[in-house]
Amino acid sequence: MLTHVKSAQTWLKTKGSLPLQLKFVIEGEEEVGSGSLVTFLEKEQKRLACDLVVVSDTSQFGPGQPAITYGLRGIAYYEVQLTGPKQDLHSGTFGGSIMNPANALAKMLASLIDEDGRIQVPGFYDDVVPLTDKEREQFAALPFDEGRFMTQLGVKALSGEKSYSTLERRWARPTFDINGIWGGYQGEGAKTVIPCRASAKFSFRLVPKQDPAKLTDALREMLASVCPPGITMNLIDHHGAPGFLVPLDSPYIDAAAKAIERGFGHAPVFIREGGSIPIVTNFSKSLDADVLLLGWGLNDDNTHSPNEKFSLADFHRGIKASTRLWHELGRIEVPTK
Amino acid sequence: MLTHVKSAQTWLKTKGSLPLQLKFVIEGEEEVGSGSLVTFLEKEQKRLACDLVVVSDTSQFGPGQPAITYGLRGIAYYEVQLTGPKQDLHSGTFGGSIMNPANALAKMLASLIDEDGRIQVPGFYDDVVPLTDKEREQFAALPFDEGRFMTQLGVKALSGEKSYSTLERRWARPTFDINGIWGGYQGEGAKTVIPCRASAKFSFRLVPKQDPAKLTDALREMLASVCPPGITMNLIDHHGAPGFLVPLDSPYIDAAAKAIERGFGHAPVFIREGGSIPIVTNFSKSLDADVLLLGWGLNDDNTHSPNEKFSLADFHRGIKASTRLWHELGRIEVPTK
Repeated sequence: MLTHVKSAQTWLKTKGSLPLQLKFVIEGEEEVGSGSLVTFLEKEQKRLACDLVVVSDTSQFGPGQPAITYGLRGIAYYEVQLTGPKQDLHSGTFGGSIMNPANALAKMLASLIDEDGRIQVPGFYDDVVPLTDKEREQFAALPFDEGRFMTQLGVKALSGEKSYSTLERRWARPTFDINGIWGGYQGEGAKTVIPCRASAKFSFRLVPKQDPAKLTDALREMLASVCPPGITMNLIDHHGAPGFLVPLDSPYIDAAAKAIERGFGHAPVFIREGGSIPIVTNFSKSLDADVLLLGWGLNDDNTHSPNEKFSLADFHRGIKASTRLWHELGRIEVPTK
Repeated sequence: MLTHVKSAQTWLKTKGSLPLQLKFVIEGEEEVGSGSLVTFLEKEQKRLACDLVVVSDTSQFGPGQPAITYGLRGIAYYEVQLTGPKQDLHSGTFGGSIMNPANALAKMLASLIDEDGRIQVPGFYDDVVPLTDKEREQFAALPFDEGRFMTQLGVKALSGEKSYSTLERRWARPTFDINGIWGGYQGEGAKTVIPCRASAKFSFRLVPKQDPAKLTDALREMLASVCPPGITMNLIDHHGAPGFLVPLDSPYIDAAAKAIERGFGHAPVFIREGGSIPIVTNFSKSLDADVLLLGWGLNDDNTHSPNEKFSLADFHRGIKASTRLWHELGRIEVPTK
C-alpha cells in the first residue's frame, strides 16, 4: 500500500497530476474478518466506482524474482460433531454393541478422500477450472526446489493429488485437510472408554469456479449417507469463499508486467496462491471491477510472526514499479461498462 | 468375598470343620493394576497351591437371575502418534503439498475395521475360539431386552460385527474401539491449520485364545504398511491381557450351579463378560488351578459411582450359595496333578 501512496506522490511532485484517477481504500480489519469493509463496499459502490482494483497482499516468487499472482484458492470450512451414547461407556462391558462415535468419525473423514488424493464428495470437481497446458508449462519452468521445500517444512516426502506437481497442487488444485480432531481420552496412559462424542474441523481449499454453497449441500448429503446408525451428526458450516482467477490475457496484466520489469529489473513470473483473500471477491463483485494482485514481499518475511521484515530494496523497487504502473494503466482504453 | 468368609464361619460354627481347605487372598489394589498381587502369586506359589480359585468380581445376569460367568474378554491397548511437518502449517499456502497427519490418522484407523465390523489386521481371527451352537442358543434364550438396553445407553441403534447378536458381540467376539483421538485446533471457530501431529488411543477386546503379543506384531506391520510417505509413526503398546474361558463341562461348574440354585432358588444362567479381569489369568497360570467366576452383584449397583449399593437380600443368598458351594466342591474327586 505504502509503495502506491509514495508512487502517487512522485507523480504529483514531478508531473503535477496523475495519469489516471486513484482511490485508496485502507483495510485495518483483515485479521478479524473484514466485516466493516464488506459493508462499506456494498454501501459506497458509487463513491468507489472504478475499472480496476489493485490489491497488494501477495508476494514475490522468491528473492529477486517478482511475480504477478493471478489466482487465489477459495475455502469451505466445516465442523462435524458426532454423538453416540448419552455418556462415555466402558469399552469392555459395551464394546461391540454400539457404534463408537470416534470410529465413525475416522470412517467418515477417511471416506472424503481416496488414496490418490481425489476428494470423493459427489460433483466436487464438476466446476473446477482445469489448469491449461500453458499454466502447467509456466509452473514447471519456475525455479522451485522440492528438496529445499521439504527441508523447510521438515518432511521426508511430499504428497497430494496424483498427476499434479507440487506447485500445481498448492496453487491450482482443491484440497481436503482435517484442521482439528478430538474425542475421548487424551490424557496419559490408557482409559478403556467408548467416547460419547467425537468431532473434527476440516476444510477444503477450492479453486475457481467451485461454489462453497453447492459443496456444503453435497457434503451434507454424503456425510449423512455414510453416518452409521446409532450416531447423530451435526455439521456446522463455518465459512466459505470462492477462489479467484484474473484472466492472463487482460491488458491490466500486460501493464503490470511492464511496470514490474521496470521497477525490479526482471520480468515477473505468473503464479497462483494457495491461500484465500476473500475480500478480493467482494471488491470484484461490489464494484464490478477487474483485480490485480501485486505484492512485493517475500515468503521469508515472517509475516504475522516475530522478526517480521520488509526489505528496503524491495520497498524502493516497489515504488518504482508502482509509479510505472499508473503510467501503463493510464494508457489503456477502458471500454464503457 | 465377604459372603465366602461368612459361609466358612457358618461351617465352622455348625459342623466344627470345613469340607475342604480354603485359602483367602484379599486384593486391595485392583484399581491400580494389581502390581503387588502379581508378584505375590509368583512368589508364594507353594503357600497358595490349590485346585480351584473362586473369584467374585462378576454379576448376576439380572435381578433374581443369578449367573455363572465362564468367559472374559482380553484386551490389547495401543496409542499411535503420527508426525508430519516440523510445525503446524497454513492450510492455504501448504495444503496439497504434504500429507496431513490427521488425514493419515483417519485413514489408518478406518483401515483397521470394515463396514461389517470385521477387524482387518492380518491373522486377527486365526486363534479366536468360535462360539459353539450351544452357547449361541443359551445366549439367545436369555431375557435380554434390546429396546431397554438402547434406552439405557441413549442410542437409537445397536451395531457391531455382522451375523452376531448383541450379547454375542459384547461377550464373545473381539472389538476395535478408538478410546481417544486428538490433533490440531480444537477451540472455537475455525483455524486454517495443517496440524504437525495427530494421535489416537485405541484398543481391541480379545477373546480366548487370541494372543495380545502376536496382535501387536501384526498391527505394527499393518499400520506401517498403510502409514503414508511423509508421516512418521510411533506405536505405543500400553498393555495387553488374553481372554479367559472356563470349560463348561467342568465338575466345578456343576458344583457352582447346584450351590447357586440352593442359595438363590433359581438355576444360574451361563454368561460371559465383555470386560477383562487380567488377574484371573495370573491366578490360573501361577497356581496351575481352575477358576470359577461367581459374583452376586447387579449391573445397576453403580459400581465405582455415587450411590454404590449391594442388596442385603443378595448378600444373604450369596452366603447360602457359598456355604453350599464348599459342600459341593468338597465332594469332587480331584485328580492328582
